[in-house]
Amino acid sequence: MSNTKVLPLLGADAPGAVPCCPPLTERPMTAEEAETAARMFKALGDPVRLRLFSAVASHEGGEACVCDISDVGVSQPTVSHHLKKLKDAGLLSSERRGTWVYYRVEPSVLAAMGKLLAPPTAA
Amino acid sequence: MSNTKVLPLLGADAPGAVPCCPPLTERPMTAEEAETAARMFKALGDPVRLRLFSAVASHEGGEACVCDISDVGVSQPTVSHHLKKLKDAGLLSSERRGTWVYYRVEPSVLAAMGKLLAPPTAA
Repeated sequence: MSNTKVLPLLGADAPGAVPCCPPLTERPMTAEEAETAARMFKALGDPVRLRLFSAVASHEGGEACVCDISDVGVSQPTVSHHLKKLKDAGLLSSERRGTWVYYRVEPSVLAAMGKLLAPPTAA
Repeated sequence: MSNTKVLPLLGADAPGAVPCCPPLTERPMTAEEAETAARMFKALGDPVRLRLFSAVASHEGGEACVCDISDVGVSQPTVSHHLKKLKDAGLLSSERRGTWVYYRVEPSVLAAMGKLLAPPTAA
């Protein structure tokens, strides 16, 4: 059912979510892996963007348009600007439907980032 | 055995790792939660810092000093600078032993960040 685009953290055709990078505790990241992952962390490194990301992620159906988001204390153009940045970082995908662009968080991207942060498996 | 300091993402006395914030998919974050979490994401939002963090996290014993890290292509003062930033963000703790400061990743912080990024529990 999904017609979202392939996102940078994932391999091509990756419904199974192959993360770009091993857990941070497994081995030192290569420069290339770090570039990819840092782009996503940076996108979440702004409080307003993080709230917007969370607003989209927790919205009914896992998607939201600017019209759904009004309570983070910034103007609608600012909301649009930040959603665009999250999309550029590969954290959100978007789809235009009529007047509005709907944004969606890919659960597989969340899962991949979560794996990156997985603590070492304890003995 | 741990004499690391309490880190911002965790509650006080939190060996059990109470994360500051609910999973991003659960409900929109409050401004205060977003401030705390964005600080940590921002710290990881730089490729060099992310590689350093990964170098410390994956080093034997889960800790490393500047003397252990030489392969990320930046000078030792730059390494020290970035490790300090990671510490300020609450991602690393440090302890001086003789000449060197040793940095350590708290697994509980990783776990808390990982939980923040947990995808919604599927039906």
